[in-house]
Amino acid sequence: MIALDANGADRGPATVAEGGRLSGSEVTLFGPEASLNGFAPVVDAPVAIGNDEEPVRAVRNKPDASIVQAVRAVADGTADAAVSAGATGAALAAAVLHLKRMRGVHRPGIAVMIPVPGAPTLMVDVGANVEVRPEHLVQFAYMGSAFMEAVHGVDRPRVGLLSIGEESKKGTPDVVAAHERLASAQASSINFIGNVEGTDVTAGAADVIVTDGFTGNVALKLMEGTAKTVVGAVRDAVRSSPVSMMGGLLIRGAVGGLRRELDPNTTGGAILLGVRGIVVIAHGGSTAEGIANAVRVAQRAVDERVTERTGAALEAGGALRSAPTATVAPIDE
Amino acid sequence: MIALDANGADRGPATVAEGGRLSGSEVTLFGPEASLNGFAPVVDAPVAIGNDEEPVRAVRNKPDASIVQAVRAVADGTADAAVSAGATGAALAAAVLHLKRMRGVHRPGIAVMIPVPGAPTLMVDVGANVEVRPEHLVQFAYMGSAFMEAVHGVDRPRVGLLSIGEESKKGTPDVVAAHERLASAQASSINFIGNVEGTDVTAGAADVIVTDGFTGNVALKLMEGTAKTVVGAVRDAVRSSPVSMMGGLLIRGAVGGLRRELDPNTTGGAILLGVRGIVVIAHGGSTAEGIANAVRVAQRAVDERVTERTGAALEAGGALRSAPTATVAPIDE
Repeated sequence: MIALDANGADRGPATVAEGGRLSGSEVTLFGPEASLNGFAPVVDAPVAIGNDEEPVRAVRNKPDASIVQAVRAVADGTADAAVSAGATGAALAAAVLHLKRMRGVHRPGIAVMIPVPGAPTLMVDVGANVEVRPEHLVQFAYMGSAFMEAVHGVDRPRVGLLSIGEESKKGTPDVVAAHERLASAQASSINFIGNVEGTDVTAGAADVIVTDGFTGNVALKLMEGTAKTVVGAVRDAVRSSPVSMMGGLLIRGAVGGLRRELDPNTTGGAILLGVRGIVVIAHGGSTAEGIANAVRVAQRAVDERVTERTGAALEAGGALRSAPTATVAPIDE
Repeated sequence: MIALDANGADRGPATVAEGGRLSGSEVTLFGPEASLNGFAPVVDAPVAIGNDEEPVRAVRNKPDASIVQAVRAVADGTADAAVSAGATGAALAAAVLHLKRMRGVHRPGIAVMIPVPGAPTLMVDVGANVEVRPEHLVQFAYMGSAFMEAVHGVDRPRVGLLSIGEESKKGTPDVVAAHERLASAQASSINFIGNVEGTDVTAGAADVIVTDGFTGNVALKLMEGTAKTVVGAVRDAVRSSPVSMMGGLLIRGAVGGLRRELDPNTTGGAILLGVRGIVVIAHGGSTAEGIANAVRVAQRAVDERVTERTGAALEAGGALRSAPTATVAPIDE
C-alpha cells in the first residue's frame, strides 16, 4: 500500500485523490477527510506543513500532520512507501526523523528526473544538502546509480560528476576529491564516466548527474526557467505575424509531444535516497496525472526493492560511512 | 586603440582580423603576421597559449604570447583595452599578472551577458573563482552593477544573489553572509533585490546575477545546453511530419530573430571585472561579427570609463578590501 499525502498540492486534496485512483496502485490517502468524500481509504489528517515552516521543528511539533503520519506508516510497516506533493523540506525532515538514514549513509539526497527529451537523466542532490563533503558526493553517485538501474532499468548507468571542465582536476577541492575516489578504489562496481559540464546535462551525456544540493537546486530551476523562456520566445516569435501564426498552427501537434516530454508532471517527482524506505515528492503544481506518475515511481521503487539495492550498491562500492559489521548500532538522528 | 589578440579563435586569425575591421574601432592585431597580410596594424606575435596549458605558468613562460603582449600594451598605456577569443584562463592570468588587481579588490571576476530575450542580464562570476568568500560575492555585486550602468546604460541595475530560495537565510553560509552584507550597510549605493533562484535568471528578474565561479560556470553552460536542446527538440518535432514541416517554413523568419538573440556571438563576450584595465574575452567560436561585438563592448567600456567607475562604486559601497587611504600601497600579485 502507498501512503499518499493529500495536503500541500497546489490543486488541492481532490486532485491528489484523483491521482491516487489513476495510479492503479493500492493507495491510502492521508488528508482532510471532509474534502475527500467518496475516495479510497482515508486516514483523517487535516493538519498540513507549509513551505514557509522550518521543516524539522514543524515535523516535531505537528506529529499529526499528514506527511508525518504518512511517513510513519512506512516506518511501522503499514505502508510500503509515502508520496507527497507538499513541502519537500517537511517530507525530508519526516523521513530523516521517522524512517532514519540507511546504515552507513552520511546524508540523504534528493534526486529528480530531468526531462531530457529521449534521455531521462537523474540528478542528485537537488537541495537536501547545501554543503557537502567528498564522501557525500560519492554516496550520491552509488545511490543514484542503484536507483536508475532498479527503477528505470538502465544497465550500468553512466554516472557523471557535475563540474566546470572534463579534466579530473577541474572544480572545487571537494569535487576534485570526489572525482578521485569515484575513479579509483572499487570503481568497477560503478560506471563512473568522470566530470560532466553544464552543456552535457541536457545532452544525455550521463544517466546520473552527481552534485551538491546548492548547485543541483540552482541547476534544476535554471533548466526549468530556460526551457520555459525559450519555448515562450518561440511562441512569441510565432505570434508576431499572420504568416508565422499559420505556421504555428501547423506545428502545434508535433510540438505538443515535446511539451509533454518537458512537463515536470511526466517525470514523477523527486525521490529521497539514503533513508530506510521509499518517499517520493511530486511537483507542487502536479495534475492528477502527475500525482499518479509519482505513485507509480514509488510503486516501482517498492517492487524493485530500491532501498535494499541502494544499500548493497553502497556496500559493494566501499562507500559506507563505516566498515559494515554485524554489531554496528542503528544510527540515530 | 584596442589590442586584439588574433590567436586562439576557432575560426582562425583572419576571422579575428575581419572582426576587428568590422568593429569600426581603431584596432591593432597581435598575432601571426604571416596569416594577417593586408590587415590593420599588426604586432607580430605568433606564439599562442592553448586551453590545455596551465594559465599562470604559460603566461610566465611565454612572455611573447599574443595575449600577454596585448595585455601588456594595456598595462603600459599603448592600448586602451585588450580583446581575445583565446583561452579565458590565459587572459585572466595575463590580466592579473600584468594589469594587476584594482586597489582593494580581493579577486577579479569574469562577467558575461546572458542572452535573455528582451532583458540582457549580466552574470558574475562565471569561472574565475571556484570558491569564494562572502566579501568576494559582495565585490562582484558592486563591480557588476557599475559595469551594467556604464556599458549597458541601465539605471540603478537590479542586483540579485543566486541562491536556492528567496528568503535571506536560504543558501550556503557564504551566500547567507553575502546577502546580509549587501542588504545592510551602505546598501543605498546599490540596488540589491535579494536572492534570485534559477527560474528567475532567464526571466529577466535581475540585471546583475551574482554567484561564485563554480555555480556560475555550471549555470552558464547549462543555459546554453538547455536552450540548444529545446531549440533542437522543437526543430525535430517540426521535421516529424510534412504538415509541421510546412509550418516550420512559415515560422522560419520569425524564429530567426530569436536565434540571433540567443546567439553568444551577439553578446560580445566576457569581461574581466576588478583588474586595472579593460579585457574582453570573446566566445572561442566567434564569427567576425562576434569579434566585432566584443571589440565594441571593450570600446564602450573604455569610453564610459568602466575601470574608474567600478573603483568608485566599490568605494561608495564600503566594499574595498581595506579602508582606502592615500598611503595604501599598490597590491602586488
